[in-house]
Amino acid sequence: MSSAHKMVILTEGFSEPIAAKTAASVVRYRRSDVVALLDSTQAGKTAGGLIGAGDDLPVCGSLDQAPQADTLLLGIAPPGGKIPLRWRQIILDAIARGMDIVSGLHDFLSRDEQFVAAARQAGVRLVDVRQNNEREVAVGQPLGDDCLRIHTVGHDCSVGKMVVSIEVANGLRQAGADAQFVATGQTGIMIAGEGCPIDCVVSDFVCGAAERLILANQSHDILLIEGQGSLAHPRYSPVTLGLLHGCQPHGLILCYEVGRMEFNGLPGRRIPPLAQLRTAYEIAAQLVHPAPVMGIAMNGRQIAVADAEHEKARIRDEFRLPVCDVFRDGPGELVAAVLAFRDQVRAHRRECGDSGGKR
Amino acid sequence: MSSAHKMVILTEGFSEPIAAKTAASVVRYRRSDVVALLDSTQAGKTAGGLIGAGDDLPVCGSLDQAPQADTLLLGIAPPGGKIPLRWRQIILDAIARGMDIVSGLHDFLSRDEQFVAAARQAGVRLVDVRQNNEREVAVGQPLGDDCLRIHTVGHDCSVGKMVVSIEVANGLRQAGADAQFVATGQTGIMIAGEGCPIDCVVSDFVCGAAERLILANQSHDILLIEGQGSLAHPRYSPVTLGLLHGCQPHGLILCYEVGRMEFNGLPGRRIPPLAQLRTAYEIAAQLVHPAPVMGIAMNGRQIAVADAEHEKARIRDEFRLPVCDVFRDGPGELVAAVLAFRDQVRAHRRECGDSGGKR
Repeated sequence: MSSAHKMVILTEGFSEPIAAKTAASVVRYRRSDVVALLDSTQAGKTAGGLIGAGDDLPVCGSLDQAPQADTLLLGIAPPGGKIPLRWRQIILDAIARGMDIVSGLHDFLSRDEQFVAAARQAGVRLVDVRQNNEREVAVGQPLGDDCLRIHTVGHDCSVGKMVVSIEVANGLRQAGADAQFVATGQTGIMIAGEGCPIDCVVSDFVCGAAERLILANQSHDILLIEGQGSLAHPRYSPVTLGLLHGCQPHGLILCYEVGRMEFNGLPGRRIPPLAQLRTAYEIAAQLVHPAPVMGIAMNGRQIAVADAEHEKARIRDEFRLPVCDVFRDGPGELVAAVLAFRDQVRAHRRECGDSGGKR
Repeated sequence: MSSAHKMVILTEGFSEPIAAKTAASVVRYRRSDVVALLDSTQAGKTAGGLIGAGDDLPVCGSLDQAPQADTLLLGIAPPGGKIPLRWRQIILDAIARGMDIVSGLHDFLSRDEQFVAAARQAGVRLVDVRQNNEREVAVGQPLGDDCLRIHTVGHDCSVGKMVVSIEVANGLRQAGADAQFVATGQTGIMIAGEGCPIDCVVSDFVCGAAERLILANQSHDILLIEGQGSLAHPRYSPVTLGLLHGCQPHGLILCYEVGRMEFNGLPGRRIPPLAQLRTAYEIAAQLVHPAPVMGIAMNGRQIAVADAEHEKARIRDEFRLPVCDVFRDGPGELVAAVLAFRDQVRAHRRECGDSGGKR
């Protein structure tokens, strides 16, 4: 993945910000590797106008318009991760042109006989980002305190946990800290070039996979660990809890979108109040490793600037915690909060006389 | 599985109650289908003496001593579910004798080239109880109230959740109710002949698999849904939460073993107090479907009768809930509690004017 340089991102029929969130994030963080979006229903428009990222990146109507491309990346993440039927011919065309195919879907390209045969004939690679062979339970012992682990969690899926993790990690690095974004989902892995597709791990091994991801990264001083789903989501809560318990965070950043009342994909299923979610996350974390919510990331994409300022003030007043909208304001307030939180954790360690060695 | 009639249960080297919990439970509930345990290190003893179930069921030292057997069932459930190396030759011997092999391990027999080749040659079946093809997310909408869903949860794994579920379901049937045990683990499936091996489902689909299991069984009036792991277990909590959210129980029976201080398999990792677990379960359930702990199942296998009575009184006093040890006392108190709880749920439904239809 990390070696791909000329990507076309397929969003055919799904070129809007939430459905095409994989496309939007890859464009946002790997802009120089992307040559176009592909959506024949939106040809001639720009990515910035359609998916809110990529500015004037062109949307082409066929692969003929992007002859220099060497990779087709499937740019959506639908519930259950199936390949849309009408995409099959587009993928086969790309294979025939000698392009590698990168997919984050649950339906693995590499288990599809037609794609496998075509790829073999064309000599191209089928890269299934979600494929994994995680088959070990967690060791389940404390992870040590030398490496500070901050984990983004949300009131729903698709509220910006990955973006917050990346932006805060980048902000910490700009502030001179040795911080690392740890990817746990297909889009994060496409951006970082490594990580663990935790929602595709067999449930007995989810905590183990998360734990191993931390052990592989704890040479850094601070980890920003991408969260998945929501502890309250009727579909994805096991993924969320496995990450929370497996990576044993010291602190949580609670992410939410203003105006999101119902769970993504579940009309009529109301999301519990943010305060209830904060309590639920802290009580769940406490069972394995205590982790307070130490900051709140607000996603204000649906509201105007003035309303966002009002909302931030309201949340600050209710939770007495740092709040920022990393999309609008940058991550500064959360970066400062993580650095202050690290000092608190260190002071607490000294008080408790904890040796805190790395495992 | 349900058609097997002459089983030998392999416990070689692991013939003690916790390691051989699969063997113990199959012997307990399918006694008439079992001809012997196989453990060359314990030959000549009885199952009752070794694993606490099966009374005078013989322990044989080789398959020569059970010539009538047609099935070899692997009788352990180790962490991670690997096949012990020294068992391979025993399994190959059984295959060569024309025996079907039934396994609940994560290491599927049907993906082991040597076993597959041997089974093909001998014309026998390799049955992997944990194998599943669950690939759909949950619908995630309310399940309705006509069918009362009671779910056993625990402070740790291996504390008796399956036995409590079976015993309470049997007790309810004896009391004239239409109750059904719903199996969610390999041993439960071996006993019931059906169910879902939830800990082997890919994490994105765990809630969906649990939900489908309920939809398939809700023609019954009362379901006793087997729990897995523990919400606090550093290895298995995602499995536990996926069941809790996917099956949307009305009420929980909290199961614990007296004297169990550390998590199964994790020396030094202390189990949180029972009251903390009760709160954590109720808060987690509330996020999707409210479910109070309506009874407590005490497992007193490590303590004397007098101490067990004292412990029950202490727990009754602390939690103000029905408590029983189904192993020692039978399930009567919990059966009565479930029937009373059903009346409460019905009364609540009438008060709320809920139509409560089945989905």
